[in-house]
Amino acid sequence: MSDEFRHRTRIDVRFRDVDAFGHVNNSVFLSYVEQGRIRYLSEALGRPISLTDVAELPLILARLAIDYRAPIFFGEQVEVGTRVDWIGRTSFAMAHRLTAGDDAHLVAETTSVLVSYDYSAGRPMPVPDDWRQRLEATEGRSLDRAAQGVA
Amino acid sequence: MSDEFRHRTRIDVRFRDVDAFGHVNNSVFLSYVEQGRIRYLSEALGRPISLTDVAELPLILARLAIDYRAPIFFGEQVEVGTRVDWIGRTSFAMAHRLTAGDDAHLVAETTSVLVSYDYSAGRPMPVPDDWRQRLEATEGRSLDRAAQGVA
Amino acid sequence: MSDEFRHRTRIDVRFRDVDAFGHVNNSVFLSYVEQGRIRYLSEALGRPISLTDVAELPLILARLAIDYRAPIFFGEQVEVGTRVDWIGRTSFAMAHRLTAGDDAHLVAETTSVLVSYDYSAGRPMPVPDDWRQRLEATEGRSLDRAAQGVA
Amino acid sequence: MSDEFRHRTRIDVRFRDVDAFGHVNNSVFLSYVEQGRIRYLSEALGRPISLTDVAELPLILARLAIDYRAPIFFGEQVEVGTRVDWIGRTSFAMAHRLTAGDDAHLVAETTSVLVSYDYSAGRPMPVPDDWRQRLEATEGRSLDRAAQGVA
Repeated sequence: MSDEFRHRTRIDVRFRDVDAFGHVNNSVFLSYVEQGRIRYLSEALGRPISLTDVAELPLILARLAIDYRAPIFFGEQVEVGTRVDWIGRTSFAMAHRLTAGDDAHLVAETTSVLVSYDYSAGRPMPVPDDWRQRLEATEGRSLDRAAQGVA
Repeated sequence: MSDEFRHRTRIDVRFRDVDAFGHVNNSVFLSYVEQGRIRYLSEALGRPISLTDVAELPLILARLAIDYRAPIFFGEQVEVGTRVDWIGRTSFAMAHRLTAGDDAHLVAETTSVLVSYDYSAGRPMPVPDDWRQRLEATEGRSLDRAAQGVA
Repeated sequence: MSDEFRHRTRIDVRFRDVDAFGHVNNSVFLSYVEQGRIRYLSEALGRPISLTDVAELPLILARLAIDYRAPIFFGEQVEVGTRVDWIGRTSFAMAHRLTAGDDAHLVAETTSVLVSYDYSAGRPMPVPDDWRQRLEATEGRSLDRAAQGVA
Repeated sequence: MSDEFRHRTRIDVRFRDVDAFGHVNNSVFLSYVEQGRIRYLSEALGRPISLTDVAELPLILARLAIDYRAPIFFGEQVEVGTRVDWIGRTSFAMAHRLTAGDDAHLVAETTSVLVSYDYSAGRPMPVPDDWRQRLEATEGRSLDRAAQGVA
């Protein structure tokens, strides 16, 4: 696959994103990723991007791993590639690839696990079938966890 | 003047900008303003937008007043209008007008004073003539403080 | 008055608060002020500091003016002095004085106006009598706006 | 080991740390971790906590993985436990354990890898012997990577 992240979110680096080291602070990468995640889910799940809907998404970010590959500088534009890798019973995995600059060089890669959560019951709940279908339609392939060879 | 803020900077509201009240946090408005201020100065003074140049600008934000007119919500785009109102001996004034949404309704107005500062000497220094000329060229009018009827 | 800000909130400067200029970013001062404002109101109004209560406070920050007096550096501690200056019919004024370092030198001063707001009706509402009494008890003096010689 | 994180950093949760979901935003956890990391290194390496020193630390955060265990709420205090797990030739690993509330319940765990970097040469450099000794003295044990059974 030459271009495995179909969904792209553009981010303008703000002066406030930069820290005393002169490049974008490590924590801000997660805000960029969050922006990509929310836009992806909003579009894939057919919900308008508004705060109410976002806050009502019954999701919890359970785990995230990030590899920092290169610094991001003020004045650059960042592109956040987002995809869903697999869907399990009560959780699913998202991956992100961040590039920056005119040459779109790699600046970070992340993997993350989100849990479908029933806030009223206070426990994980099965990923809704509707979501599964929409996410698979977005990715254009089966996302069944077992089929991905994931433990 | 039908359009008194010629310089515009577009800001995409991020999920991280929103606080527990469900709208963009009051402190984040100042980051939006900062983004407009830096882009304006970078363009007017003919410096590329890069961190090195920004950090070398011999400027201090001395004062800022902001009127919050309406909340900004996630999913909206903000436009920051920026202009220079007057230039004094060692300081100059900038104003910003923030609008949001498809109807570009007013969300905030700010006035601010910046001081031209000689960091090595540790004291204010006269606004460079070169800056004065470039800022007046950008605004298309004299910015002499006395001429503005400012105390 | 040798000590006119009775209420103090201590803030530990975080590395993330600092920007590329090497000192605390101008927008972060407003987060420090916010922290002082919320703690003051929480204590004066007899509400526990919890998010639910804070988000339910029927208040809007309408205006804020800040004078930046000195930079704040990483490793310093900031103290935010907070007081209420006057209470009008539907609004009241708060002032803050920020000091930093071992010598508690002045770093910023702010004045602000908050509006008592009825979110369900979508308009300002009179400041509750109960609030007026509690705020005056906290300040130890009358806060009637007219009596302050405020326009 | 009943208490494996000897180094502790206390963090006061700020209102600005909270997002529209009503708890501390996922990216802010990394700012808390950063605060713990910098204080640990500052103390272990015998450098005063000042920006200049921090910005001169020849270190790059290369990788971080975080497990979010529970939400953090406004009004809570967070404690960041920090330790060094191993030191390799040009990199070393830090782990953090975040707890919150009066019962110090677990809210997040992270592992991270930092690279000792020669900025002038633009490439990784061996971890200085001096650092190795100081970090081992802080942890009270050998930190040799091979000895930890790490690949």
